[in-house]
Amino acid sequence: MKVLGMKHKDAPDTALLHDLRKALGVQHVLTDTQAQAKYLTDWRGLCHGRALAVVLPGSTEEVAAVVSACSRAGAPIVPQGGNTGQVAGATPDHTGEAVVLVLSRMQRVRSLDVENATITVEAGCVLQHVQEAAHAAGLLFPLSLGAEGSCTIGGNLATNAGGTQVLRYGNARELALGLEVVLASGETWDGLRGLRKNNTGYDLRDLMIGSEGTLGVITAATLRLFPLPKAQCTALVAVASIGLTGAFLSRCRAGFDASLTAFELMSGACLQLVAQAFPQQRMPFTSIDAPWYVLLELSDSESASHARERFESLLGEALEDGQIIDVAIAQTLAQSKAMWHARESITLALALDGKCIKHDISLSVSAIPAFVQSTDTSLQAEFPGVRNFTFGHLGDGNLHYNVAHALGTTDADLLARQPALSGLVHDAVHALRGSISAEQGIGRQRTNDLQRYKDPVELRMMTAIKQALDPMGLMNPGVMLSPSS
Amino acid sequence: MKVLGMKHKDAPDTALLHDLRKALGVQHVLTDTQAQAKYLTDWRGLCHGRALAVVLPGSTEEVAAVVSACSRAGAPIVPQGGNTGQVAGATPDHTGEAVVLVLSRMQRVRSLDVENATITVEAGCVLQHVQEAAHAAGLLFPLSLGAEGSCTIGGNLATNAGGTQVLRYGNARELALGLEVVLASGETWDGLRGLRKNNTGYDLRDLMIGSEGTLGVITAATLRLFPLPKAQCTALVAVASIGLTGAFLSRCRAGFDASLTAFELMSGACLQLVAQAFPQQRMPFTSIDAPWYVLLELSDSESASHARERFESLLGEALEDGQIIDVAIAQTLAQSKAMWHARESITLALALDGKCIKHDISLSVSAIPAFVQSTDTSLQAEFPGVRNFTFGHLGDGNLHYNVAHALGTTDADLLARQPALSGLVHDAVHALRGSISAEQGIGRQRTNDLQRYKDPVELRMMTAIKQALDPMGLMNPGVMLSPSS
Repeated sequence: MKVLGMKHKDAPDTALLHDLRKALGVQHVLTDTQAQAKYLTDWRGLCHGRALAVVLPGSTEEVAAVVSACSRAGAPIVPQGGNTGQVAGATPDHTGEAVVLVLSRMQRVRSLDVENATITVEAGCVLQHVQEAAHAAGLLFPLSLGAEGSCTIGGNLATNAGGTQVLRYGNARELALGLEVVLASGETWDGLRGLRKNNTGYDLRDLMIGSEGTLGVITAATLRLFPLPKAQCTALVAVASIGLTGAFLSRCRAGFDASLTAFELMSGACLQLVAQAFPQQRMPFTSIDAPWYVLLELSDSESASHARERFESLLGEALEDGQIIDVAIAQTLAQSKAMWHARESITLALALDGKCIKHDISLSVSAIPAFVQSTDTSLQAEFPGVRNFTFGHLGDGNLHYNVAHALGTTDADLLARQPALSGLVHDAVHALRGSISAEQGIGRQRTNDLQRYKDPVELRMMTAIKQALDPMGLMNPGVMLSPSS
Repeated sequence: MKVLGMKHKDAPDTALLHDLRKALGVQHVLTDTQAQAKYLTDWRGLCHGRALAVVLPGSTEEVAAVVSACSRAGAPIVPQGGNTGQVAGATPDHTGEAVVLVLSRMQRVRSLDVENATITVEAGCVLQHVQEAAHAAGLLFPLSLGAEGSCTIGGNLATNAGGTQVLRYGNARELALGLEVVLASGETWDGLRGLRKNNTGYDLRDLMIGSEGTLGVITAATLRLFPLPKAQCTALVAVASIGLTGAFLSRCRAGFDASLTAFELMSGACLQLVAQAFPQQRMPFTSIDAPWYVLLELSDSESASHARERFESLLGEALEDGQIIDVAIAQTLAQSKAMWHARESITLALALDGKCIKHDISLSVSAIPAFVQSTDTSLQAEFPGVRNFTFGHLGDGNLHYNVAHALGTTDADLLARQPALSGLVHDAVHALRGSISAEQGIGRQRTNDLQRYKDPVELRMMTAIKQALDPMGLMNPGVMLSPSS
């Protein structure tokens, strides 16, 4: 019986490995533990898994061959791009049964059409390379985020990545016109079209985008490009109260319209933490004593002088009205970079402070001041002394609402209470019809949150669609929809 | 047997009518032929159907009650908004079994959030009322199309309406943040959220948008609003060859970026037809002798003088370069309206000329010149003397490619050859990876085209999703996916 059991278990694996090696070549099927290692751990080092094989197909046909082979063998498939996600959506589970399908060898720019303002790239293309290819043609691919040097466009689309320019250009979803996807059936859906209008059936493109590899493997995409701005202006603005930021945003939108490309909120505590952690960093203000700051960016289609004039005029009026209390306008590119650098250093400064509890939430912009005030207060009542380090993309209603341990206590004290603390925060978000995962997705890490906060009607629709398109449940199982749902 | 048969057939109908009357009140369940009439014919008068009842629910709960009752009785449901569609997607079939579910009584603006720049409206709200409600709050709802005085936002979303401002603001899809939908199960999915970032599951919103009532009934939506432009400029530009329009569009995009809100192409033949049909209309040019014209609109967030300066500077350069051969800039609002009026009169002028064969297609912008030249030539070879009246939203790659009878022949001669002629046009579009229905959808009218041109893989995915979300097949059967598919 035992031998027979072994045979039953091993035979399909052997056959699968044979099929994979035949399809991709031996060198692109990694079974050695050391060779596999970097693909089996998420970049934060928090989540580890095992895999039967890590495979690196070089073409859409090879991806289809891998999916077909896995389907025949009943082996789960875990697609992986640059492995930079925050929620362990590309890490296999512990069973060692999965095949990790890494797209990194598929990195060609297939075409760039200047008049149509589109670029068609393979899924493994690193985001920064897409930006560079567009720039070389005098155009802009606006998706921009911290991991852009290593994340891939396939992963960006599978997770509907956000970043700092969503206010103007939208999420990854809004930047994609067409997709090529290998489906659970092993068939390839060729939806690579550079069309801005196409009403011939269900929107399968947007269904695939943000589905985190649970409905298919994105192998290529046709993306929108935009004119390069002629000039940009950056300012750091001090605000006396978070209640004033909404009206200030409305003023900036009315005055700058689509030229407003960033509106980033940071608490004074965040900037103070950066100043303490990195004393060599040049700060725009000599003292950081306002409770809130906004980093503002204007992208102008005319000229530097025109941009400057618009910027100064509007900010001058906001100062006079008392909507803002201080403003530093970058006079040089170096100063502009320093402002962005301060904003981008918050995450690192927080990491140096210890382990904080992070929440990636979104709300209606108008609901944010009341949310922050009441949630900060509730936290103090329940968890006295915890420190808030709130920042985020206020222009899109997306906050990174971070909570660090009270002074005189330890990270461990705080982390022991994480479920209760995050529950309090997420319950407050939920009560205001907000999102408990604005840009990072669900992955393996937030499946319980999804079950808790998602409308059961919507969960049933999702499950029905998953079953319709992946009846064997082999596409990234355990991610997004937990196996029991 | 006959009596039993009658009983079997009638009993469920009687029970259904009873349920509907109980849920909505007798006055909102129309069974009288005369009262039903206007809901059973599409606005073009081309497609007629019959219905068991036409029902007019007044709330989401009543819509859910109607769907549940129909589901129990196995009766098909045909959702209808303003009944202004071009493809008979809201007209029941001839069996008389369907319940036509008209949303026109649900026309409340539920809320408007200025700081979040969103409005939440019920599905039966007429598009123009949404525009007006936004305008009254100092904001813009940019969806704009010919039928805006009678079409409803529910229909706009169910068909993913396009129109003239897609270039800047996107289709109806891009303007919706959240939906409320009554599903085939009779359950209500409350997805009314005003969030710009929300990565918590499959994009069910975009799946519903453009599904033409085949997956559920949209009952309300939360929509994006934008700043009102401070000034607009309009120009009519003459172009020597369609091959030059792509580079001219690129120049306008680079120079105006998001301020370019319309880029409409018309052939000289279209404008000549308008001038002949409506001799009292003021034309911007004394003689219409260029082969192509572009109607250009700039929407500026600063001032009238700023807009004018930008506009004149770019158009002057394009003239000097020879990219365009003549330009008329509207000096007054009346002149601007006259230019738009000429553009909007093409459809009526065509109708006065006779019945023409219309094609609502889209292509990559860069593919349009070659498509027009080669398809015009092929048509002359196959159908000598037919007359092309091509116009459309060039900025989005959407052409209305219309073909009228040869002089000396009749409409009937042409219409007899419609299948072959449209086949030639659509084959050419398909070969260039274009869309055979850019903004009008599929409805009942184009189901055969969908079967012919859609990738079979995509058709199978659509069918699987339809079966997953509407297993009884009661939501608008015969629309989009034909019953046999």
